[in-house]
Amino acid sequence: MVPDPATRPPHGVVPPLVTPLDEHGEVDRASLERLVSFQLDAGVDGVFVGGSSGEIALLDTAQRRAAVEVVVRTVAGAVPVLAGTIDTGTRRVVEHARQATELGADAVVVTAPFYVRPGAAEIVDHFRYVHAAVDVPVVAYDIPSATHVALTPDIVAELAAEDLVVALKDSSGDLAAFREILRRTELPALTGSELFADTAVQVGAAGIVPGLGNVDPHGYVRLHRAAREGDHATAAAEQDRLARLFRITTVADRSRVGFTAGALGAFKTALAVRGVIAHPATNLPLRPLDDDEARGIAAMLDEAGLGPVRAN
Amino acid sequence: MVPDPATRPPHGVVPPLVTPLDEHGEVDRASLERLVSFQLDAGVDGVFVGGSSGEIALLDTAQRRAAVEVVVRTVAGAVPVLAGTIDTGTRRVVEHARQATELGADAVVVTAPFYVRPGAAEIVDHFRYVHAAVDVPVVAYDIPSATHVALTPDIVAELAAEDLVVALKDSSGDLAAFREILRRTELPALTGSELFADTAVQVGAAGIVPGLGNVDPHGYVRLHRAAREGDHATAAAEQDRLARLFRITTVADRSRVGFTAGALGAFKTALAVRGVIAHPATNLPLRPLDDDEARGIAAMLDEAGLGPVRAN
Amino acid sequence: MVPDPATRPPHGVVPPLVTPLDEHGEVDRASLERLVSFQLDAGVDGVFVGGSSGEIALLDTAQRRAAVEVVVRTVAGAVPVLAGTIDTGTRRVVEHARQATELGADAVVVTAPFYVRPGAAEIVDHFRYVHAAVDVPVVAYDIPSATHVALTPDIVAELAAEDLVVALKDSSGDLAAFREILRRTELPALTGSELFADTAVQVGAAGIVPGLGNVDPHGYVRLHRAAREGDHATAAAEQDRLARLFRITTVADRSRVGFTAGALGAFKTALAVRGVIAHPATNLPLRPLDDDEARGIAAMLDEAGLGPVRAN
Amino acid sequence: MVPDPATRPPHGVVPPLVTPLDEHGEVDRASLERLVSFQLDAGVDGVFVGGSSGEIALLDTAQRRAAVEVVVRTVAGAVPVLAGTIDTGTRRVVEHARQATELGADAVVVTAPFYVRPGAAEIVDHFRYVHAAVDVPVVAYDIPSATHVALTPDIVAELAAEDLVVALKDSSGDLAAFREILRRTELPALTGSELFADTAVQVGAAGIVPGLGNVDPHGYVRLHRAAREGDHATAAAEQDRLARLFRITTVADRSRVGFTAGALGAFKTALAVRGVIAHPATNLPLRPLDDDEARGIAAMLDEAGLGPVRAN
Repeated sequence: MVPDPATRPPHGVVPPLVTPLDEHGEVDRASLERLVSFQLDAGVDGVFVGGSSGEIALLDTAQRRAAVEVVVRTVAGAVPVLAGTIDTGTRRVVEHARQATELGADAVVVTAPFYVRPGAAEIVDHFRYVHAAVDVPVVAYDIPSATHVALTPDIVAELAAEDLVVALKDSSGDLAAFREILRRTELPALTGSELFADTAVQVGAAGIVPGLGNVDPHGYVRLHRAAREGDHATAAAEQDRLARLFRITTVADRSRVGFTAGALGAFKTALAVRGVIAHPATNLPLRPLDDDEARGIAAMLDEAGLGPVRAN
Repeated sequence: MVPDPATRPPHGVVPPLVTPLDEHGEVDRASLERLVSFQLDAGVDGVFVGGSSGEIALLDTAQRRAAVEVVVRTVAGAVPVLAGTIDTGTRRVVEHARQATELGADAVVVTAPFYVRPGAAEIVDHFRYVHAAVDVPVVAYDIPSATHVALTPDIVAELAAEDLVVALKDSSGDLAAFREILRRTELPALTGSELFADTAVQVGAAGIVPGLGNVDPHGYVRLHRAAREGDHATAAAEQDRLARLFRITTVADRSRVGFTAGALGAFKTALAVRGVIAHPATNLPLRPLDDDEARGIAAMLDEAGLGPVRAN
Repeated sequence: MVPDPATRPPHGVVPPLVTPLDEHGEVDRASLERLVSFQLDAGVDGVFVGGSSGEIALLDTAQRRAAVEVVVRTVAGAVPVLAGTIDTGTRRVVEHARQATELGADAVVVTAPFYVRPGAAEIVDHFRYVHAAVDVPVVAYDIPSATHVALTPDIVAELAAEDLVVALKDSSGDLAAFREILRRTELPALTGSELFADTAVQVGAAGIVPGLGNVDPHGYVRLHRAAREGDHATAAAEQDRLARLFRITTVADRSRVGFTAGALGAFKTALAVRGVIAHPATNLPLRPLDDDEARGIAAMLDEAGLGPVRAN
Repeated sequence: MVPDPATRPPHGVVPPLVTPLDEHGEVDRASLERLVSFQLDAGVDGVFVGGSSGEIALLDTAQRRAAVEVVVRTVAGAVPVLAGTIDTGTRRVVEHARQATELGADAVVVTAPFYVRPGAAEIVDHFRYVHAAVDVPVVAYDIPSATHVALTPDIVAELAAEDLVVALKDSSGDLAAFREILRRTELPALTGSELFADTAVQVGAAGIVPGLGNVDPHGYVRLHRAAREGDHATAAAEQDRLARLFRITTVADRSRVGFTAGALGAFKTALAVRGVIAHPATNLPLRPLDDDEARGIAAMLDEAGLGPVRAN
C-alpha cells in the first residue's frame, strides 16, 4: 500500500537523487530508472528528486520535468517522491511546484528565497504563499551554503506553529541549531549531513537525506536502522566507513573544478563505476572529473567494499 | 536611427528599470510604459530590464516576458534594451536569453552561476556556452552580494580576451577591482554603483547603471555628462545630492523587511510619490513599506528637489 | 595526588572560567576563588583560565596575571589548570605562555594567529614555534568565530602527527569536522559546545569545555558522566535542560550590546544571582546587562532549578 | 618647525612603515633608520609605525617598543609619528598607547576591538575610554579584513561628533562608505588603499597611507601632489604605474604562504632589493618568500623604473 505523505511526513532514508545525463546532456532516463531501482532495492523510505545533489540549479525546464516524470513512474507509489522546487522567488517556486504536483510528486521541497536578501518575516511569508498555492505538502529546506540565507530555529518554529510545512530538511551542518529545532517544535526534521547522520537520528531526526546515499544506499539504510534501534556502536561504525567513503568528494583538483563539480561529479563517477548509471557527466557549466580522478574514486569504492551493482 | 549594440556596446546612463506591479501582483504595463518614457525623456542611453532592481529573481515566466515586451515596445528602438537573463545555471540562462531575444532585446545580461559553487574555469565556460547559444551580445554582470560568486579581474580578463562578452556591469562596490579590469582589458565596463558613479566615469567607466536612476534619471544624466566632460566639481556635487537621496533605501524598518525590500521598495515608493508608477508594490515575498516610511521617502524627495513628474 | 598533564592530557569537564571583576574593573580575587571552589566542588576535571569566556581578549597584563595566579593558587593542584595564551602572533603568544608557566599553569591553550591572514603551513609553524619555546604542554584551540582562521582537520592532523599539541579544544560548532579529527588522529579532542556536549562525548570527545559550565557545573558533570557511561537518555535530558538554560545568552538587547557582552554578561549575571561572584561586570568596552535583563536571567535560573549556591 | 598634530591632524602621505628584522628576528634598527630616512627624503608628511604593514600583530613587547623608539628618534620631529596601538580590547590598547606616548609618538592609531564581537555602541565606548586615557590624539583605523568588525559611517560619525578621534584611516576598500563619511563629518579621513589613492584624494581624503609607499614613496608623493592640485591625468598615470607595481603582492605561491606573508613579504623583499633594508624577513609565523619569488619582484621593480636607492 502506498504511504500517504499527507498523514505520514517524510522519514527514514530519503536519498537526494542525482540526475544522470546522457552523452548529449539530456536526462538519461534509463540510468535514472536504474538509480531509482537501486535505491528501492536497498530499502530507502522515500526519494528526493531535484535537490542540490540533483543539480536542480542547473536543470532547464525540460530536464526538471523529465527527472520528476521518470522518478514518479519508476517509484510507482512504492515510497513517497519528494520534488525539489528550488528557486529564487515565491512565484517561481509556485510555478515549479505546480508542475511537480501535476507530474505526481507527493511533496515539494522549498528553500528560502535567495539572490534577493529577505527578512525573517518575508521568509515565513514565502512559505505561507507557497503553502496556499500548492496542493501537496511542503518540506522546508535549509541549505545556507547554497542560498546564503538561513532558516533559523525562530523561522522554522514559526513555520511549524502555522503548519506551513510538514518537515524540515536541514543541510546547515549546524547540529546545535538542529537540536534547538527538535527541542522547540514537533516538526519532523531530516538531516542532509552525510557525516553525522547517525548522531542526527540518535538525537531525534525523523530521517536522513544523504547525497552520498546515491552511491551506497545500503550503508545508510544499515546506519539508519542501527541508529533508530539504539545500537550506537554499529551506527557509528557504519558512519565511519561512510565518512571515509565521502572522501571521494575531495578527489577532484580544485584548481580545475569548483566545489559542486567535485562533490556531484564524484557521486556520479562512483555510480558509473558501480554500473548504476551510464555516464558520470554533470550539467553545464560544471566540468567533468578526469580519468585519474575517476581511478582515485574507484579505489576508494574498493576500499569501502563497494563493487559493481548487479541488475535484478 | 537605432544604435546597433553589436557595434556599439552599452554605454552612458543605462538605468536598471524596476518592474511596476498592479494591485493583483501582475506587471503594470501602463506604469512600466510611463517609467520607460520618463527615462527616455531624461536622456538615458539605454535601459536594462530584468536586473536586480527589476526584481528578476522574483518574477515568474509570464512577468519576465511581460516586462521585456513592454520595454522593447515602448523604447521602440530609441536606445538599446538590455535584458537580464539571470539564473542559477547555464541551460536556464540560455532558456531566458532565447526568450528575451525573441522578444526583441538587444543584449542579455548574465551573472555567474549561483546556488552552485563553480570554479573560475567553470564560470568562464558558462559565458562560453551562453555566448555560443544566443544571437545577441552578452553583458557580464558581477553582483557578488546577490550571487556570492565573484567575477574576479582574472575571470573578466579571460571573458574579454575571448570576446565572450561585449561589456561588464560591475556591482561589486570594489573600485580597486574595477580599475584593475579597466587597466587590463579594453572591455567597456559600467558601474552599478549609485554612490561613486562620478568617480567610475572619471577613471574610465563606459557607463553607469544606477538603481536610483529609476527615481532621478535627470540627476544621473547630468552627473554622467559632467563627469565625462571632466567637470569634476559639478559631477561631485550631483553625486553628493544623489547620495543623500539614496538614503531613501534606509528608511524601511529592517526588523520588518529585508535589505532588498528596503531598497527596491524605496525606489518604487519614490516613483509612486512622483506619479510615474501607480503602485509601489514589490513582488512576493517582499513586504511593502508602510505609510510612515512612504512619508519619510516623500520628505527626502522634497529635500532633493524632486517633485511630481508631468506627463508629456 | 596531582594529575600530571604531561602524561594525562586535558579531559573530562574543564570549564572555561569567567574572570570576575570588582567595582573598579580589577580582577575580583575573592569572587574568582569562590568560582574555582564552586567548580571543584561540582567535580570538574580541570579548569581553563583566560579563555574566550574569561574575556582574555579584554584583559590587560595585570589582569591576565592576576587571574592565573588566583586560579593556580586556589586549585592548588587538585586538577590541571589550563591557561589561555591567546594572541595574534607567535612571539606574543610565547610571551604570554612563559608568564603563565611561571605562574604555575599546567598547560597553555593557543589559537591560530589572527588579525593577520596566515596560510595553513604558517599555522602549523606557529604551533611548532610555541611548542619549542614553552615548557608545558600546548592545547590547540579552534574558535573561528573569534579568529576567523580555522584549524582545519588537515592542520590538526599535522599538529597531532608531530606531537606539537597534547589536545584540541574545538569551538567550531562543526561536528562533522570534529568527527573527522577523531577519525584521523589519536589526539584527545574536547568540545567547546554547550549545546551538543553529550553528542561530542558519545562520538569520542575526551572532554567538554562549556562556557555555561561556569553557571551550572553540576549539570555538565552529570551530563558528562552519563554520556561516558553510555546512558544516552540521561545525558540527552541533561543536555536539553542545559540548552534551555543557555537561552540566558539571548536575553540581552542586541541593539544595545554585542554578541560577546550578551553571552559573557549572562554567565556573570547568572553567577552573581547565584551568589558565586560579587559583580556581574564585564570588561571594557563591553556594556553590562540592565536590570530587566538580569531579572530575565534570574527567572531562567529558577526554571532550570538553579538556586543560590551555599558556601561550604 | 615641527608640526603639531594636536592642531594639525594627520594628512598627506603617511606610509605605514614595515618593521625590518635582522637575521635573529629582532628589529633591525639600522634598516629601520634607513627606511625612515628614505621616506623623509621622498617628502612624506608623516609616518605610521606599528600598523598592519608593520606586522603589529606579530611584534612582541620589545619589538613594538624598539620600532617606535627608532622611528621617533630618526624622524626627530620632522613629521608627525603615528603609532599603531592595535589590540583586541580597550585596556590592552591603553597599555600600548601609554607606552607609545612615553616613547614620543605624536598620535596613536586604534582599531575596533576584535576577537570579541562588540556592538556599535561598545565600539564607540572603546574610543571614548581610549580617548580619556591617553594624552595624544587618537586616529580611528577601519580595517575589517583584519578585525572582522567594521567602523561603519554611523560609528565614525559618532566618533567625530564627540571629538574622540582626530582622523580616520580607512582601509575598508569601500569607497562608497568613505565618501559617506566625508559627506557626513568634518573628520579628516585618510585612505589605506594603494589602488585608488588618487581617487580618494580627489573626493576629499586628507591623505593616504599606502603600504606600497614603503617601496615607492616618491611615486605616492607625486600622486598625492598631482591629485591635490587637480591634475587628474598625472595622478591617474602614477596610480596606474603603482597599481602595476602592486602586483608584487601576488607573486608568492599562495599554497605555501598566506595572504599577509605574500603582501608584507613582497614589500620587504622589494625594499631589500632596492637596498633600503638588509633582510626581507617577516616575523613568525610568516614564511619568507623564496628566491624565485624575489626574482619576480625584482623584475617588477625594474619594470616600474625602481632601482637601488642611493644613500645620502
